[in-house]
Amino acid sequence: MKRDDATRFRSFLEGFRWQDVDRLAYKEEGSAPFKAITRQELFADPDMACELRYFEMEPGGYSTLERHEHVHAVMILRGRGHCLVGREVRLVKPYDLVTIPAMTWHQFRAAPDEALGFLCMVNAARDRPQLPSEEDLRELESDARVAAFLDGSPTA
Amino acid sequence: MKRDDATRFRSFLEGFRWQDVDRLAYKEEGSAPFKAITRQELFADPDMACELRYFEMEPGGYSTLERHEHVHAVMILRGRGHCLVGREVRLVKPYDLVTIPAMTWHQFRAAPDEALGFLCMVNAARDRPQLPSEEDLRELESDARVAAFLDGSPTA
Repeated sequence: MKRDDATRFRSFLEGFRWQDVDRLAYKEEGSAPFKAITRQELFADPDMACELRYFEMEPGGYSTLERHEHVHAVMILRGRGHCLVGREVRLVKPYDLVTIPAMTWHQFRAAPDEALGFLCMVNAARDRPQLPSEEDLRELESDARVAAFLDGSPTA
Repeated sequence: MKRDDATRFRSFLEGFRWQDVDRLAYKEEGSAPFKAITRQELFADPDMACELRYFEMEPGGYSTLERHEHVHAVMILRGRGHCLVGREVRLVKPYDLVTIPAMTWHQFRAAPDEALGFLCMVNAARDRPQLPSEEDLRELESDARVAAFLDGSPTA
């Protein structure tokens, strides 16, 4: 969308909301597994080649385990949780940076007792995410740390 | 740069630094007016169409007053200061969003007693900034609020 003068400045509001930014469903319900996560599109300007979104999970919430050709550039903004990238599981905290390379399985999970919010920069033109097959899941779960993460009990 | 496994996760460090991210000069000295400002390139991946940079001004520091065809998408990350976009001067605080449209004069200034740090998303392919002519400056300064901002005494 083009921004007129009034929307060149958009204030940060309580509860990690922003002026003139809607809090949206993460994805269409039933389209993929996820839990207690919302999406806010902070910048999606037709003159920019990328978008910047803010995702937030409630305590215990998680994003979809998926992969795609496009790259994600993530900065954690609030809270605490764990992140899976490939077979690496890491504890993440505010301002940490996470790069998700092409075709790499990834998922974010908020801590059981704390929300997790992060910025995600992504190309405006991008492919659709792929979900893991049963075989992909078995392969991922063959790694004990990955299995613990997917089970909601990360040990990192 | 491509990231190997080790650099998929880059931790936030004290003093608004990041693991494996250099703190760079804002611009070449003498190329344009600016004061007490540094640049850190957080994401600059050849597979992404945008870059995400972190700029930080010491108390009293400022970025260059300039304009260009490309758009800036800014999120304030720390501190307090003022921002000029066109003829609008605004006080900015953490997590506020600023959109800088094409060919619009803009500048950031940290408060006299506090640093100001912000994220800036920008197209990887972009034009060079233009500096104001004497006539541009006179026109900008004809607005009392803009003049006060440029003088380092914003009243917003």
